[in-house]
Amino acid sequence: MPTNKQQLLDNRPEGEATASNFKLVTAETPPLKDNEVLVKHHYMSLDPYMRGRMNESKSYAQPQPLGQVMQGGTAGEVVESKHPKYAVGDKVVGFGGWQQYSVVDASQPGALKKVDTTHVPLSYYLGAVGMPGVTAWYGLVKIIEPKAGETMVITAASGAVGSAFGALAKARGCRVVGIAGGAEKCKYVTDELGFDACIDYKQHPDTKSMSAALKAECPKGIDGYFENVGGYIFDAVLLRTNAFARVALCGMIAGYDGQPLPLANPALFLVNRIKLQGFIVSEHMEVWPEALAELGALVAKGQLKPRESVAEGIESAPEAFLGLLKGKNFGKQLVKLV
Amino acid sequence: MPTNKQQLLDNRPEGEATASNFKLVTAETPPLKDNEVLVKHHYMSLDPYMRGRMNESKSYAQPQPLGQVMQGGTAGEVVESKHPKYAVGDKVVGFGGWQQYSVVDASQPGALKKVDTTHVPLSYYLGAVGMPGVTAWYGLVKIIEPKAGETMVITAASGAVGSAFGALAKARGCRVVGIAGGAEKCKYVTDELGFDACIDYKQHPDTKSMSAALKAECPKGIDGYFENVGGYIFDAVLLRTNAFARVALCGMIAGYDGQPLPLANPALFLVNRIKLQGFIVSEHMEVWPEALAELGALVAKGQLKPRESVAEGIESAPEAFLGLLKGKNFGKQLVKLV
Repeated sequence: MPTNKQQLLDNRPEGEATASNFKLVTAETPPLKDNEVLVKHHYMSLDPYMRGRMNESKSYAQPQPLGQVMQGGTAGEVVESKHPKYAVGDKVVGFGGWQQYSVVDASQPGALKKVDTTHVPLSYYLGAVGMPGVTAWYGLVKIIEPKAGETMVITAASGAVGSAFGALAKARGCRVVGIAGGAEKCKYVTDELGFDACIDYKQHPDTKSMSAALKAECPKGIDGYFENVGGYIFDAVLLRTNAFARVALCGMIAGYDGQPLPLANPALFLVNRIKLQGFIVSEHMEVWPEALAELGALVAKGQLKPRESVAEGIESAPEAFLGLLKGKNFGKQLVKLV
Repeated sequence: MPTNKQQLLDNRPEGEATASNFKLVTAETPPLKDNEVLVKHHYMSLDPYMRGRMNESKSYAQPQPLGQVMQGGTAGEVVESKHPKYAVGDKVVGFGGWQQYSVVDASQPGALKKVDTTHVPLSYYLGAVGMPGVTAWYGLVKIIEPKAGETMVITAASGAVGSAFGALAKARGCRVVGIAGGAEKCKYVTDELGFDACIDYKQHPDTKSMSAALKAECPKGIDGYFENVGGYIFDAVLLRTNAFARVALCGMIAGYDGQPLPLANPALFLVNRIKLQGFIVSEHMEVWPEALAELGALVAKGQLKPRESVAEGIESAPEAFLGLLKGKNFGKQLVKLV
């Protein structure tokens, strides 16, 4: 049995998360029982939602248990199998967590999924053609329900969700305006991802300035908004919404560190008859096949060119994760383990 | 032609609305043209939404023009007609405004509606079986979509919208908890309107206290919320929502006087995957027949016993309206003109 380096949640953050919240340990992988599969992880996914689970307080999911392996998506290869449908060498995605290997009961529905890496690189199944891509798809297609000619706005536009959202919205004939941090990311969002415009929030650090920038880039107002961040950007977007705008609410990174972020003017939901809906994509497994089919096709056609930030080695996971929370990543944040 | 006393909007409020914003004038009613009808108003409706229209700023409707008759719903009787479908003596509801008479082009769709006062008093068509009743119906049926056994909460529970909401939600097998101001109103809400419980917000003047009161009265959490007020009560309700709660947003009285009221913790929309939707009932005319049929039946069966606050005479309208904004009314606020 191979040895298995793991990152545990050692203690909960007080305020900002730090590297000392995690602990690196080494374990043996246990022998397989019937129906179990040993997966060697090639990539681990780092995602903003993990910060919410590090808190003990009520979040949109069970808290990450203390002293256990950090949970998260993984992509890898079967290295040993006691399940008839999985063979050594199969490429698979699952929820193996922050460790080099995982033992998976492959008879559990949804625990493991074989993927085809002929046209789509393995790592993409953790990003554009995985959970972040489906997140963008669900928010856009099921909540925002865009019409051709409408204007869509998304924060964290250069990230995994943002890049998929842009391609999906362009495919539906919308004007798509991204918000991202820094000139380099904004250039990528327009030049590579094909957004119509991108606003650098570092140049617009308050509601008034951001609202003016949105007015310039969204001359017909905002019909759909995908909320990833919270805080003053949300306030500014609401000021520019059209009647009957829709808001898909999927993350509020800025608020994970403890202090709730207020919303300045919720009366705008009434004034503009806005629909807002919070969601977690894992509660909508029924849409995954349809969403993944569209996302895979966009990648194959070159209409969705995701970018990745790849940290090397299990040891690098905490720092890469903390950087992600501060927007230091550029595209989907991964940890490469082999 | 009879003389016609009218209340005009003379100037816009700066902060709180005052009686000096209005001006009482006397005009002659003009001679009727073809298809026009002269209606003598028996009742004028006073409603919170009118405060929003007094502001010049963008609201959910066109601002009330300065120097013109205050707009609003009316119920009355045809006293002269040049339209073939309306005869002298017909009881009608319309949008005649703050005046004793109105001249209506009855050929315009929706301008005037004949009503049957055999089983339902004329004034109810401005309340439980009118716009406020349909407002409650739309929020409950179309946005909240209640299931039997769920818990519903509504603010301004003793008012026209609240009383209808309670009867409609009870008819669907829900637990219904009202929020109202003062022991007398709360007693009415439980004893006469049949709510399961009513919380006196005057006894719970902050988020923490209101949240504790809601916890006590909603032991299974809150699944549906009809928002009429805004401010700390909204914050407190959000703290008690269950996963997949729905919020119908139809008024934010507390914010009409200028200062936007912030929302303390919008991340709860995500944590609990809440759907929130703002709406104006006049934009959903397609539901009125179905809604009014159910509301009329509830009144006829004695399951909806609306209460009215009736001010006497056109002169009393401004003070009655300002009292409404401060919660001084008890039930649907009307002005009786004959």
